[in-house]
Amino acid sequence: MLQFISEIDFIIEIDKLKSVFRKSLVLDQSKNENSAEHSWHLAVAVTVLEPYANFKNMDMLKVTRMALIHDIVEIDAGDTYAYDDEANKLKHEKEVCAADRIYGLLQNDRQNELKNLWYEFEKRESPEAKFVDAVDRFIPIMINYLTQGKQWKAFGVTATKVLTRNNPINDGSTYLWKIVNEIVKESVEKGYLIGS
Amino acid sequence: MLQFISEIDFIIEIDKLKSVFRKSLVLDQSKNENSAEHSWHLAVAVTVLEPYANFKNMDMLKVTRMALIHDIVEIDAGDTYAYDDEANKLKHEKEVCAADRIYGLLQNDRQNELKNLWYEFEKRESPEAKFVDAVDRFIPIMINYLTQGKQWKAFGVTATKVLTRNNPINDGSTYLWKIVNEIVKESVEKGYLIGS
Repeated sequence: MLQFISEIDFIIEIDKLKSVFRKSLVLDQSKNENSAEHSWHLAVAVTVLEPYANFKNMDMLKVTRMALIHDIVEIDAGDTYAYDDEANKLKHEKEVCAADRIYGLLQNDRQNELKNLWYEFEKRESPEAKFVDAVDRFIPIMINYLTQGKQWKAFGVTATKVLTRNNPINDGSTYLWKIVNEIVKESVEKGYLIGS
Repeated sequence: MLQFISEIDFIIEIDKLKSVFRKSLVLDQSKNENSAEHSWHLAVAVTVLEPYANFKNMDMLKVTRMALIHDIVEIDAGDTYAYDDEANKLKHEKEVCAADRIYGLLQNDRQNELKNLWYEFEKRESPEAKFVDAVDRFIPIMINYLTQGKQWKAFGVTATKVLTRNNPINDGSTYLWKIVNEIVKESVEKGYLIGS
């Protein structure tokens, strides 16, 4: 067996994200989406939605890389459903261990760069992190709406829960938050989402 | 049904790339990979493999965006297997029509930016395009090697075909081309690849 450089070992390792499945569906409803294809979708979405961020002059390379790597920790920690309050309490600690192991495959400079980018995303303090977080929350809401609330119904999610849990969207993009409010209103009217 | 801004219509449209399947497998061999998760894998790979490019001072935002959007045309044109010579002759024309339709969903500035980025990738003249192309060719070779040549065997691919078809890797990364030559040599020895 050939021995590869550490960067290739990392590329091999993260292939596993293609088999971490989320609660969200692919829009054609053929399957649950996995965290790798979701991360791709998010990275393209932040590119085209940049004009709707609450901030000007963001570092777009940072924004894009943050989107690409934000879920890599799920290889060890698994995907945590946004509306599962108990699981979310334990989530961060598991993900920190995962970040140490997975980014630890890389050499020091790149390891620190990507790990710090993930910590920055988790903290949601910088403009870039707030914007990536906003779009990351927006996409599954959009998918739920376009799939007639199939997964919201399956997990008994309410309008209040969607609006409470996703309020940070407003910190990254007031414009997207306005759309979310319209989606939730219409979803309750159409019976996609429990109106309480 | 709510009416969305053109950027969201584009994000909805490209969800279809999650259902365009490639000949390559996911490394755990549970399924063929799709072009969305492949594009994510490529975008992370170009990030960590940057030091092994033949070029210094590449525009890394351009490199990353190119990786993210390079296969979007496959939504209309489908994935073309690298070793299917006949299909590759007809590929470009179908993809140009696809680029017009799909990027056409965006407004002018962003539409032109992403479409030009795809044309730049297709031409393989700029350092950024040569490097993305090199990594895009490298990853499936790595996957084939790590899955004991399962798909190479299924499609009767030979060592000569792999080396001839993927020679442009050398234009983007001499280092990766050296690894490819080692992989091909070892794959022939192990019987993953036909040695002719």
